[in-house]
Amino acid sequence: MKKIDKTSRIPLYIQLMDILIDEIENQMEENDQLPSEREICEKYDVSRTTVRQAISELERDGYIYKRQGKGTFVAPKKLNQDLIRFYSFTEEMKKLGKTPVSKVLSFNIVKADKKIAFKMKRNEGDLVYEFSRLRLADDVPMLLETTYVPHDRFPGIRKADLEKTPLYDILRYRFGASLTMAEEVFRPVMTREFEMKMLKMPAEVPSLKIERFTYDGDAIIEYSNTIARGDKFKYRVRLENQ
Amino acid sequence: MKKIDKTSRIPLYIQLMDILIDEIENQMEENDQLPSEREICEKYDVSRTTVRQAISELERDGYIYKRQGKGTFVAPKKLNQDLIRFYSFTEEMKKLGKTPVSKVLSFNIVKADKKIAFKMKRNEGDLVYEFSRLRLADDVPMLLETTYVPHDRFPGIRKADLEKTPLYDILRYRFGASLTMAEEVFRPVMTREFEMKMLKMPAEVPSLKIERFTYDGDAIIEYSNTIARGDKFKYRVRLENQ
Repeated sequence: MKKIDKTSRIPLYIQLMDILIDEIENQMEENDQLPSEREICEKYDVSRTTVRQAISELERDGYIYKRQGKGTFVAPKKLNQDLIRFYSFTEEMKKLGKTPVSKVLSFNIVKADKKIAFKMKRNEGDLVYEFSRLRLADDVPMLLETTYVPHDRFPGIRKADLEKTPLYDILRYRFGASLTMAEEVFRPVMTREFEMKMLKMPAEVPSLKIERFTYDGDAIIEYSNTIARGDKFKYRVRLENQ
Repeated sequence: MKKIDKTSRIPLYIQLMDILIDEIENQMEENDQLPSEREICEKYDVSRTTVRQAISELERDGYIYKRQGKGTFVAPKKLNQDLIRFYSFTEEMKKLGKTPVSKVLSFNIVKADKKIAFKMKRNEGDLVYEFSRLRLADDVPMLLETTYVPHDRFPGIRKADLEKTPLYDILRYRFGASLTMAEEVFRPVMTREFEMKMLKMPAEVPSLKIERFTYDGDAIIEYSNTIARGDKFKYRVRLENQ
């Protein structure tokens, strides 16, 4: 068993966190109950304050969740998204045996403002679809996406189309677009209250903000801004040498 | 000029944030001062509460920072790290014209515990170097890294070596290792107090937690755990189709 080193310069609660993370990852299952604060104090010979601080940080990092009056439990494991090949939410969730659903929250045709025009390499004022979607897997909200698609290249898309057909299938099969390549830029952000509500997040955990630029040849045929739950996703990338 | 739509279902502070982000990104420079709360209220005809909420979220997201009694300023832009080829912190910072420095905070040779052995595909009890480094660019702390390297393959590395030579140069030129490929797994996390202090972060912003597995052929020659400041970095990846 790993032990707390009281002579170390590493704060006790960080040491305790590392021990608990190790147990959570290697010896426990999703939704297993953690020992009580008192039991943890006794097992590792640390103060109640240290235990509380470690538990609260583990909750913030999405390892565990609390149920009022019931105790503390191991949070469901994160999905591993490979950033190696082009991927779509719908296809990835199906591979995992989950049922993907997209709820279209808003759908408009608007004039591209300066920022959207810049991002999509278009002229300001060009017409674009602007729609927000909540993406669910087995009824669990996973992503909140706002997507822009040029109207002139893809006329006649309606809200109902997006509800029953994956966007990439529409672009590919109805309009013959070839999705050559996508570029993603991501950074960690605090989840906004509004987003937490939409995504039904159990605690305040940070999210990954992902911008995606999808290309058909040189043209950007999709620009999207996604909030991906930090407690649900981890991303993997393979870096080749040379 | 973009306007606030008071009939929209999107909360006012989110609309205001979007407008301010647009101005910050397209019309302002690093360290420029933002208008006062009162001026923003008047310009967009919103309440003080709305302005405060927008400003506080922008600060949390790392767009702006506050100086007590001085006002609110545009935060320095983020570095763009391409996740396309194998990269090293030292080389990337040099490319940007910055001076990279590594402070070795701790350096030990330890027995791999269950978790480290699992991560590195080694046996429990194998000797590994375990060292923590603070990576700075032009004296600004950027990354906090804990690295594990197998001892048997790379005997005789000392703390002083790491302070004057990049790790990958040691592995490559002193031991003839070939850094074939690296795999990174990342997810957003709340920055811990301990890490915020080490990284001298001005406000509570989330970080990216990055695990790196560096391979020489089939062998893992480096496993590291990095906290990358969310207010300093954004990452870019290119996804090819098929």
